[in-house]
Amino acid sequence: MKKNILVIPGDGIGPEVTTWGKAVLEKIGSIYGHTFSFDEGLMGHVAIEATGTSLPDDTLAKAKASDAILFGAVGHIKYDNDPSAKVRPEQGLLKIRKELGLYANLRPIMLFDELLNASSLKPEILKGTDILFFRELTGDVYFGEKTRGDGFSSDLMIYHKYEVERIAKKAYEAAMVRGKKLCSVDKANVLETSRLWREVIQDVAKQYPEVETEHMFIDNAAMQLVKNPKKFDVVVTANLFGDILTDEASQIAGSMGMLASASIGDGTGFFEPIHGSAHDIAGQDKANPLASILSVALMYEIAFGLKEEAKRITDAVDKTLKAGYRTGDIADSNTDKAKILGTTAMGQKVLE
Amino acid sequence: MKKNILVIPGDGIGPEVTTWGKAVLEKIGSIYGHTFSFDEGLMGHVAIEATGTSLPDDTLAKAKASDAILFGAVGHIKYDNDPSAKVRPEQGLLKIRKELGLYANLRPIMLFDELLNASSLKPEILKGTDILFFRELTGDVYFGEKTRGDGFSSDLMIYHKYEVERIAKKAYEAAMVRGKKLCSVDKANVLETSRLWREVIQDVAKQYPEVETEHMFIDNAAMQLVKNPKKFDVVVTANLFGDILTDEASQIAGSMGMLASASIGDGTGFFEPIHGSAHDIAGQDKANPLASILSVALMYEIAFGLKEEAKRITDAVDKTLKAGYRTGDIADSNTDKAKILGTTAMGQKVLE
Ligand SMILES: CC(C)[C@H](C(=O)O)[C@@H](O)C(=O)O
Ligand SMILES: CC(C)[C@H](C(=O)O)[C@@H](O)C(=O)O
Repeated sequence: MKKNILVIPGDGIGPEVTTWGKAVLEKIGSIYGHTFSFDEGLMGHVAIEATGTSLPDDTLAKAKASDAILFGAVGHIKYDNDPSAKVRPEQGLLKIRKELGLYANLRPIMLFDELLNASSLKPEILKGTDILFFRELTGDVYFGEKTRGDGFSSDLMIYHKYEVERIAKKAYEAAMVRGKKLCSVDKANVLETSRLWREVIQDVAKQYPEVETEHMFIDNAAMQLVKNPKKFDVVVTANLFGDILTDEASQIAGSMGMLASASIGDGTGFFEPIHGSAHDIAGQDKANPLASILSVALMYEIAFGLKEEAKRITDAVDKTLKAGYRTGDIADSNTDKAKILGTTAMGQKVLE
Repeated sequence: MKKNILVIPGDGIGPEVTTWGKAVLEKIGSIYGHTFSFDEGLMGHVAIEATGTSLPDDTLAKAKASDAILFGAVGHIKYDNDPSAKVRPEQGLLKIRKELGLYANLRPIMLFDELLNASSLKPEILKGTDILFFRELTGDVYFGEKTRGDGFSSDLMIYHKYEVERIAKKAYEAAMVRGKKLCSVDKANVLETSRLWREVIQDVAKQYPEVETEHMFIDNAAMQLVKNPKKFDVVVTANLFGDILTDEASQIAGSMGMLASASIGDGTGFFEPIHGSAHDIAGQDKANPLASILSVALMYEIAFGLKEEAKRITDAVDKTLKAGYRTGDIADSNTDKAKILGTTAMGQKVLE
């Protein structure tokens, strides 16, 4: 297999972690006889600095032409503290999601046994948890009309039937090959968009009678995820609710630094850690590269349909953790201090 | 002191738990020489059944005329499964919040030491946690215009400056007499409403230079609340984000069944457990009455400015827990089975 990969390192720790995702992609490729040609694109704060816009046309064109995209993170504290900034790093990410039609964001919450103690949740609550989130990614209040008026601001939360339908189908298909349980999260007791969402899910559910469907309000889901994460199998939800729930769920996996995601839809797939740019630790060789490495496992599996290669990567991560190696974010009081590694050393260990 | 109290038991477990809130209100009154005249109002599913509307005019008139309101819960599974229902129990709750101008919903996350093990979070993560949430309650996507169009639905997320200002001030005032730390939660990297929110908070912050202000994105906050709840003191956030975060935070207190809330604003205060109607356990003498009882403590403190009476109530709850008594939701594997009580027995114990 020969594929064109666009790497978009982005801001903050993005470049550091992406280096290791890319290295693992190539290494596994060399073992299994796949070759890659790489290109690089700017996005986020670095793109604003270089070109004045957070998603240059050139990056978008390359993205559309590539077979898969490996992305790092975007964001910068400068814009966070300046709510009136017109150009913002996140605009690039939102725009590329929209332009590539990446309507389904898959976020698997995998639990490596070695990290059971790294979480703030009790091991007995966590053990056995295995959740696959489907977050809708190109609709909702993220993309509805924004208004800034005299003394007020607004964002339109909006969903079309077809948007709910297509992500629902993807989620049900996944549920069929997993535990046959699907939980749809909404706020149908208050929101009109959620009522549409619930109706569509109820409709799509009919095509999957083997799957047990549950509807849950977002407030309750945010609670249940902490109380009893094991009860979830596939979770499907809107863009905003998915943003919140998956970050919360990262604590199940011990750290944000462990979670990978795949965004898919009409064209090229987009693979990224769910963590952000984390400027506070950028450039210090402290970031956990495992989420980027696991994003590459998702790329092999989802973009290229190569399960064995994907498994080889998760096995390598597992082995590294079993050997006791940790980055700071996933270390606990029992970790051998000598085995707490920086980004580079951790990346190396997995490669080996 | 003599006060008029409107009791709105509502749906599901609402009536069962409210009975005990009311009993404790009277009991403490009799000790300290306060008298109450009680009236009762319909709201929610029970009101729809009786009158066709979830908030009858009569209830609203009584609410406006009373000195404080003790509320149970509203909701019914029937409407949850029927997204197209035009009349819904929750409408009554939303309307009374709006009509009474209850723009600030205070949700203290108190941790009784005895319940440290009832949580799914590790005791060492929890110990020392003490958070006071200020959830905005009469704005946001809850009250913006709702549209149902051809193949789509929308809800307008909208905030006015003055709405953010008034809740911000309340939150800062509270921070001044607490730990002098305030965390404002928004999604300013995506939402225009959040950018307005953040600007106003930055402005109000200037009036409280002694308070350390932090801005956090909602996704990050949902994560930090699990990872390190101790870091929060006062949290102020929008209606929807507050709904989600406070339910999530209930797991810090061991159970939803422990959390009380106070809604205040322009007129009469409104006191309620944060839990819902829980129809699955309604009428079975299983519900935890402590949230309703603790709501009455908030009523004494916030509506009537009577701290000693409030403390007497929380002390009684503490003593009951110290004596080993638990309802099912807060029992853990170390609980003496004989001390697991129903609603009635738990209510009695606290009264004693
Ligand atoms: C950076 C931000 C716009 C983004 C989002 O909210 O979608 C991020 O939090 C994510 O989850 O990918
Ligand atoms: C019942 C529902 C409308 C309500 C809300 O979302 O505000 C409830 O969840 C709450 O938190 O009081």
